[in-house]
Amino acid sequence: MRSTLARRFSPSSTLHRGIITGPRFTPVVQSLPSIVPFVAPEEQERVRGSKFAVRLGANENTFGPSPKAIAAMQESVDGVWKYGDPKSHDLRIALAEHNGVAPANIVVGEGIDGIMANVAHLLVGPGDSIVTSHGTYPTLNYFVAGRGGVLQTVPYGADGRHDLIALLAKAHETRAKAIYLVNPDNPSGTWHPAANIEAMIEGLPQGTLLLLDEAYLELAPKKVKPSIAAEDLRVLRFRTFSKAYGMAGARIGYAIGAQEIIMNFDKIRNHFGIGRIGQAGALAALKDTEYLDKVCKQMVEARKTLKEIAISNGLKSLPSATNFVTIDCGQDSTFARAVLTSLLEQDIFARMPPAAPLDRCIRVSCSTPEDMQIFARALPRALEEAAQRQLSLTSSS
Amino acid sequence: MRSTLARRFSPSSTLHRGIITGPRFTPVVQSLPSIVPFVAPEEQERVRGSKFAVRLGANENTFGPSPKAIAAMQESVDGVWKYGDPKSHDLRIALAEHNGVAPANIVVGEGIDGIMANVAHLLVGPGDSIVTSHGTYPTLNYFVAGRGGVLQTVPYGADGRHDLIALLAKAHETRAKAIYLVNPDNPSGTWHPAANIEAMIEGLPQGTLLLLDEAYLELAPKKVKPSIAAEDLRVLRFRTFSKAYGMAGARIGYAIGAQEIIMNFDKIRNHFGIGRIGQAGALAALKDTEYLDKVCKQMVEARKTLKEIAISNGLKSLPSATNFVTIDCGQDSTFARAVLTSLLEQDIFARMPPAAPLDRCIRVSCSTPEDMQIFARALPRALEEAAQRQLSLTSSS
Repeated sequence: MRSTLARRFSPSSTLHRGIITGPRFTPVVQSLPSIVPFVAPEEQERVRGSKFAVRLGANENTFGPSPKAIAAMQESVDGVWKYGDPKSHDLRIALAEHNGVAPANIVVGEGIDGIMANVAHLLVGPGDSIVTSHGTYPTLNYFVAGRGGVLQTVPYGADGRHDLIALLAKAHETRAKAIYLVNPDNPSGTWHPAANIEAMIEGLPQGTLLLLDEAYLELAPKKVKPSIAAEDLRVLRFRTFSKAYGMAGARIGYAIGAQEIIMNFDKIRNHFGIGRIGQAGALAALKDTEYLDKVCKQMVEARKTLKEIAISNGLKSLPSATNFVTIDCGQDSTFARAVLTSLLEQDIFARMPPAAPLDRCIRVSCSTPEDMQIFARALPRALEEAAQRQLSLTSSS
Repeated sequence: MRSTLARRFSPSSTLHRGIITGPRFTPVVQSLPSIVPFVAPEEQERVRGSKFAVRLGANENTFGPSPKAIAAMQESVDGVWKYGDPKSHDLRIALAEHNGVAPANIVVGEGIDGIMANVAHLLVGPGDSIVTSHGTYPTLNYFVAGRGGVLQTVPYGADGRHDLIALLAKAHETRAKAIYLVNPDNPSGTWHPAANIEAMIEGLPQGTLLLLDEAYLELAPKKVKPSIAAEDLRVLRFRTFSKAYGMAGARIGYAIGAQEIIMNFDKIRNHFGIGRIGQAGALAALKDTEYLDKVCKQMVEARKTLKEIAISNGLKSLPSATNFVTIDCGQDSTFARAVLTSLLEQDIFARMPPAAPLDRCIRVSCSTPEDMQIFARALPRALEEAAQRQLSLTSSS
């Protein structure tokens, strides 16, 4: 076999001539920058050479999942030699019941991120427009770029909320395939009430899909949840077990939409991508509504605490319907970055919004009273250090 | 806000006119069939209305993972509120050491399937050719179709092995972007020794990437593992924790390749797609080489047992370097399907290769002596029922 292969296909008989050029990536892939878009806290810790004391930068839920979900996951480890059910049958039935839709209206994925990768695959070809707010949760942007799509952005409103009118206008103008809207929003924490979202849906251009990311919905007041018919072809909603349910590391998200939309995921998704342990945990977490209520109350408390910490430092915070609070540092992005840098140096992992006008803020996740106290102690020093840094910059210029 | 929205973007001012047409999926997606390509045992059980007694159809590892991996996963559940490290840093370092390459030569994904979805994204645009054997493991085919790629197939050789010469010839003929080769193979169980693979690599057309799926490599004789330089631009290798390591439900696979290839995954992959629990389990499983050796020996025993069961029923089996044995039922695909049907009716989950010439066979996973005994008892009846079915078809025609 070996000699036959060598005789038939020797390097000299092909195009090699000693030089190997490597794989032929698609034109879109070749055009993409080779940057890592998401720097995780673990990576920051490795670069710093030390661990963070508190983890308030990824909007994780430090209260953790329901003890029943933990027990279900630990129990399910014994069966991990089996693939997870690729249809997530039991979980989809439970999610359908929970949301008042049919199981065929639900697709489960590897977190909302995983589902958004598939949405980009379904909708976006080179040159296709997607509309979103400049500086909102960036993962869909990344997947749209990965398909050669064109991101059309509008700024946040002056109130720190999405500018729904500008988003709609941009979608009409660019004949966008979709508008991506996070509500309640990350990284601002702000929200639009259901009535606004419902009115926005009525104003969508024909054939423009509203990608409504409701990752933080369980943590929001009831009036935030829009009423959308299960078979409405204009909207695809995203939910997750990573936030209120406290299971970010288990990678379970889902989308709710018309069957005519949802069925398309089966054409392209990684059917066996959903872990067995995560499915078991999500099912148990969903059933434990008592624990969810308790966590939501703890989050509301922590939101109040973060707001008070801001006020006691002479700052304002943006209203939040999420598990984090975005604190307006009152000056420009250089100042906010200096505050963040000092917090990181004080072993507190936090983040800041990436774009104006919100990049005058820092974003701090809700957590336990102990974590909130650590942050309360660190913020005054961070503000002071940022002010000093600014002063030294001013005097040297 | 609501009234402004309604005034500016009322349905009557848009293209709606009462009819909603739904999202504009890409032309490739629109052309894809709406079928579910993978019917899992759970789905078959739901359709049957009863559970299988033994699960020998998905090449899962019924011996399960190392007890140390189980302990590591159970322990890691407590930290599941945190996202998994998107760089899989610790696991990649361990995998690099294990494989004698650099961490930058490794990308971790949601099983080999998850990585193959990304490979299709990186390489395949509409009309691009990918070469493979007709009837081999089908997932890459599915992802290639999902990109509008063209699958170019050649039949298996008469010995049940991949026909490397025909694969190379087809790649030259079609200027293929890649050849997908499973070695040891699924669903045949057969393998080519390292020397053949190495010779094949030398014969690749310029710019054709060999996608070498080594999912079963740990279970194969040492001589199957080809020697490939870490920075060789012609090959991308795939490995998994789903087979020998017994962690199919944890969704951890990885690819080994030149840094120039591997770095491209960061442009398009779901960075936070890898679960925290799976990463912890894989790291512990990799370290427990003693347990792996033990499982491999048990698999070799089970392979012998399956071969003997075939012989004692007057059948031949294909040689196997995997955790399953493909048994030649000695007649056509109708007969093999009848054997499989009877096994399923006897509560044994098994499968059969999908295409000629291997569709005269059934494929049975290696398992515990108890499971093998259940199969040994069921096979004679399955063969008898298949023969009777054939007889009644012949006499009625």
